[in-house]
Amino acid sequence: MKNKLNVGVIGLGRLGRVYAADLAHLVPDAKLAAVADEQKQLAEAFAKENSIPKWYANHHDLISDKEIDAIAVITPTCTHRDVVIEAAEHGKAIFCEKPISISLGESKEIVKIIEKTGVFFQMGFQRRFDKGYIEAKKKIDNGVIGTPVVLKSTSRDPFAPPMEFCDPAKSGGLILDMGIHDFDVARMLMGDIKSVYSIGGALAYPEMKNIGDIDNAIITLNFENGTLGVVDLSRNAVYGYDIRAEVLGSKGTLKIGYLRETPLTVLTKEGVTHDVVPHFMERFADAYLSQIKDFVNNVLKGKVPSITAADGIAALIVSLAATKSYEENRPVQITDIRE
Amino acid sequence: MKNKLNVGVIGLGRLGRVYAADLAHLVPDAKLAAVADEQKQLAEAFAKENSIPKWYANHHDLISDKEIDAIAVITPTCTHRDVVIEAAEHGKAIFCEKPISISLGESKEIVKIIEKTGVFFQMGFQRRFDKGYIEAKKKIDNGVIGTPVVLKSTSRDPFAPPMEFCDPAKSGGLILDMGIHDFDVARMLMGDIKSVYSIGGALAYPEMKNIGDIDNAIITLNFENGTLGVVDLSRNAVYGYDIRAEVLGSKGTLKIGYLRETPLTVLTKEGVTHDVVPHFMERFADAYLSQIKDFVNNVLKGKVPSITAADGIAALIVSLAATKSYEENRPVQITDIRE
Amino acid sequence: MKNKLNVGVIGLGRLGRVYAADLAHLVPDAKLAAVADEQKQLAEAFAKENSIPKWYANHHDLISDKEIDAIAVITPTCTHRDVVIEAAEHGKAIFCEKPISISLGESKEIVKIIEKTGVFFQMGFQRRFDKGYIEAKKKIDNGVIGTPVVLKSTSRDPFAPPMEFCDPAKSGGLILDMGIHDFDVARMLMGDIKSVYSIGGALAYPEMKNIGDIDNAIITLNFENGTLGVVDLSRNAVYGYDIRAEVLGSKGTLKIGYLRETPLTVLTKEGVTHDVVPHFMERFADAYLSQIKDFVNNVLKGKVPSITAADGIAALIVSLAATKSYEENRPVQITDIRE
Amino acid sequence: MKNKLNVGVIGLGRLGRVYAADLAHLVPDAKLAAVADEQKQLAEAFAKENSIPKWYANHHDLISDKEIDAIAVITPTCTHRDVVIEAAEHGKAIFCEKPISISLGESKEIVKIIEKTGVFFQMGFQRRFDKGYIEAKKKIDNGVIGTPVVLKSTSRDPFAPPMEFCDPAKSGGLILDMGIHDFDVARMLMGDIKSVYSIGGALAYPEMKNIGDIDNAIITLNFENGTLGVVDLSRNAVYGYDIRAEVLGSKGTLKIGYLRETPLTVLTKEGVTHDVVPHFMERFADAYLSQIKDFVNNVLKGKVPSITAADGIAALIVSLAATKSYEENRPVQITDIRE
Repeated sequence: MKNKLNVGVIGLGRLGRVYAADLAHLVPDAKLAAVADEQKQLAEAFAKENSIPKWYANHHDLISDKEIDAIAVITPTCTHRDVVIEAAEHGKAIFCEKPISISLGESKEIVKIIEKTGVFFQMGFQRRFDKGYIEAKKKIDNGVIGTPVVLKSTSRDPFAPPMEFCDPAKSGGLILDMGIHDFDVARMLMGDIKSVYSIGGALAYPEMKNIGDIDNAIITLNFENGTLGVVDLSRNAVYGYDIRAEVLGSKGTLKIGYLRETPLTVLTKEGVTHDVVPHFMERFADAYLSQIKDFVNNVLKGKVPSITAADGIAALIVSLAATKSYEENRPVQITDIRE
Repeated sequence: MKNKLNVGVIGLGRLGRVYAADLAHLVPDAKLAAVADEQKQLAEAFAKENSIPKWYANHHDLISDKEIDAIAVITPTCTHRDVVIEAAEHGKAIFCEKPISISLGESKEIVKIIEKTGVFFQMGFQRRFDKGYIEAKKKIDNGVIGTPVVLKSTSRDPFAPPMEFCDPAKSGGLILDMGIHDFDVARMLMGDIKSVYSIGGALAYPEMKNIGDIDNAIITLNFENGTLGVVDLSRNAVYGYDIRAEVLGSKGTLKIGYLRETPLTVLTKEGVTHDVVPHFMERFADAYLSQIKDFVNNVLKGKVPSITAADGIAALIVSLAATKSYEENRPVQITDIRE
Repeated sequence: MKNKLNVGVIGLGRLGRVYAADLAHLVPDAKLAAVADEQKQLAEAFAKENSIPKWYANHHDLISDKEIDAIAVITPTCTHRDVVIEAAEHGKAIFCEKPISISLGESKEIVKIIEKTGVFFQMGFQRRFDKGYIEAKKKIDNGVIGTPVVLKSTSRDPFAPPMEFCDPAKSGGLILDMGIHDFDVARMLMGDIKSVYSIGGALAYPEMKNIGDIDNAIITLNFENGTLGVVDLSRNAVYGYDIRAEVLGSKGTLKIGYLRETPLTVLTKEGVTHDVVPHFMERFADAYLSQIKDFVNNVLKGKVPSITAADGIAALIVSLAATKSYEENRPVQITDIRE
Repeated sequence: MKNKLNVGVIGLGRLGRVYAADLAHLVPDAKLAAVADEQKQLAEAFAKENSIPKWYANHHDLISDKEIDAIAVITPTCTHRDVVIEAAEHGKAIFCEKPISISLGESKEIVKIIEKTGVFFQMGFQRRFDKGYIEAKKKIDNGVIGTPVVLKSTSRDPFAPPMEFCDPAKSGGLILDMGIHDFDVARMLMGDIKSVYSIGGALAYPEMKNIGDIDNAIITLNFENGTLGVVDLSRNAVYGYDIRAEVLGSKGTLKIGYLRETPLTVLTKEGVTHDVVPHFMERFADAYLSQIKDFVNNVLKGKVPSITAADGIAALIVSLAATKSYEENRPVQITDIRE
């Protein structure tokens, strides 16, 4: 086993900077060898600030950097296929942030290149590394709630992303872009999904209609094993970043999630008040770190990926089915998408 | 205005006894003049224990008792039509526990007799009298959460009722029997419903399949005004009686409900624990009382009913549509049932 | 056993009206036969509104009313001795709201007349009838927290009473008037108290200094059995009525109390908010009712009082010791007061 | 300004390892240049595991290491004076974990050497760096609760430390060892303390009597400005690590602290349960990191210490006064200790 894994991060958007800072400072077994971003000044500034030896304006240069063992792909989703294929062809271990792609065809190309090159490939779904979800999974496996029969999963952003990020042609639309986290969690906690039905609307940001996206959706899930699920998604939880799940079983129920950020309660004539988690970077800071440590560890120790490309595709297919269901206002079988 | 309203209660099941005890002791403007139940001994024992002057084994006798001004009908749903029609023909003011009927045809007969006789008729939907739901409605009306865009409503019983009460031919099945509360709340908080889609299963009590009922269901709602809703129902919340609702708006969110019964928290090596609301009689004790007081007050003061037969029918139609949707696995328009 | 107990209520202040309304409507085994208050119009109006047959401007008349079996004394504390003695001499069963008196001498006179006449006498300390305190006592008795070692008890009013009620010559001052509840709870949960030490000040309402009272106090308790306690009192919990207790044991801890009044949470940009219990009438509505039912039941069934005059005196002595400790800024032994 | 501060950590006990790991991995502006511990094997193992270039079995060697700019003193309290004096004489910047000493005389020697040598010296009181305490301080300064009038502060360990660490001759005893955190917080939030009174006992671990220590204590505080406070301390919070504070003001109240560790709630027939914070390393992980970052930043940027030796002495004096009060069972003036 190598002592330290040399990692390169491609994409220094909001989330890319989280991964890069984690790798630069908080993952003892990794060395952040280089970062790349199309905005060269951003890459340079970030690298200098974080004592990262190299930076590139061009992901090709990072990928062909022989010093680099592994690459974290945190670029816009529409670029995943190209970047991953190029990285695989250079024999790099790959971490790819969700979603694997918004196109089933592209996803399958990714799988092919992974199989062909045999590179290590791990999907990013950070909720699987959150203490709440981990402990819930353990408790279910230990029979604490008997047989799980219903899953409820909620994702709410405090505000809509800039309209340019909402373009469903690029993001896949609300149900895919946001719901894919919930569908992945659903698979982890309950098993494979058989069919879905979706309703939705552009209700809080009517301007979303112009770009063909929606801001709220509810999706019911029928699992292969006969159990039930429901996912609700919203872009207008103005009070904060609200991520929850609940598993109802025959002998008990689990609730995952929390809202409070600061351990302080204020009691005045107006009532009893506390603040909330502002956004994903606060809510999942520990999970993002655990996830990238897990990736580094798996590569160094020659383990199998914790979340595979197949997992990424399975969640994508559910997302596509749920989107189609919304568009056609009818239940959609997962097998209709798969084929 | 009369000084006190003489009320008779027909049906001394679990809930009938709640109403009767409230009327006997806790409603200053009412006198509980008589109770009736097919089990005469039960009626007699209850009457003696609560100093109620008269008891009948036969609801006909109670209805024809001229001393009685108003009747609370808390009998099995399948008897509502007959009892209500007879009471209306005798000119009694009528309080009818939900659901008005499980048959749309019978419900319409009830409306006809009310219109023909002009008697006062008020439906029972006690959640509308719960402090949480009342205050939520006020806050919505006052604009605290901006435009409401999504409703979530949950009803969970701690255990299934005895199988004989689950016979869907009598109860209407889970979606109608239990969900009608949520559909009524949905109408109160969000407006009329346009279409529904349901999934469900007999998951915790597989024996329910034998009688053709289910124990868990999830129903999505499209409201006429374009907003969204979801109702989830369960018979296996073994931890307690769990009734919740949530309204997500463009400027805030409201959460209704609570779980703790006793104001005591126990902290041991096993964790931090509190107890839960055991069942509806604890959770809605105040609401049942407020509701029957409201009925008595409306009759005495010549006011209009707080919840009408039309409300009862509207919630029934949603229930029938949602049941049909489950059976046929497709979205169902409310207008398909209405006609 | 008589069928119903004929009760008279003397004193129709805020709390007197609570007891009277309970007795008039909510205690099946009691008949509220008469009320008395120096303000005759108040007595008359209240009686008419609640269908109470008789009202008096003069407590002597109520006491000499032969129809009356039992009397609830809810008058200003300074009158307790005279009213109780007169009622005892007329052979009435007596319920006396806390404190028994602010004078140890007067309290002893009360005990003497009770012993001499043999009348039934029960003190009012409603916290003993609150579900949280009752369940805590049970859990302690059942060993859930091992050996209890520390008690913490908090009483906070949302605002100071009108200055005229604060006159320590009449109320006994903050430590007695308010703290006596906590000292009684301390005795119930932990055992007898050996010594106390108090600090305090007129901090939120400096004008209290003019009348010689304080608005905040902290009192430490040494129990006879070696365990420890602390009571904190405040008149300026502007956020609501906050009554809490905590028992720390060798194997666990119990926390009693709650703050939320309405089962509704509001989530907006300003944070997550809920309302609070406004005052004692909401917090202890059930406990006041249970307590007066308990009194009625004990009298009717010939049981012993649930809380005796001796309990009343014991809590008074702790209050006097704690007040003296504050005045002299030194620990005070309970035996110094007792003798 | 230097680029990075070369820091040495002396003492690799439980807490020393926390600081050392933080400095090794999580403080970008510091380089952990060396660690020292009397147990050489421990030092060596820790250093290798964390890629720390040097380790010493002897703090003299670390102090005389010229490469080292700053030293974190995390040794047993009884050694603080000697280690600090030696480090100061070598001109090192010093971070000293609480308490500065258990001896007022030794503390004053420390102050003298700091003044004489002019070295940078910062005390460790990590609660000042916890988000809850920081935000509470801000809200008080912003007038959110009006005038603060009462402070309550609670510290509870889940179990007693090994008896050898409890020897009051070395630890100072419960009130000093544990309470000094609360006294420091009290000074930060409310101002200087004028007098104290303590009660206590060896109640859950009677064997503590043998070594002359106690396991529970309650200390009342009179502040110079007339306001009030109370601190309660316990070694037997078997349910978890429970650190709380509350500031009651004329216009509102603040509550600091939390108990839940994992964002998961379990609902079963036994009730609603969540886990708790196990110990200080989980509760204050972020605060320890913020504190040592603050030290590093202050040294590098030539700022004044955030917490001075004078703060350390002030909290020590209150601790000594409170201990004396317990021993002599009387209120003790702070000035009695100061002189």
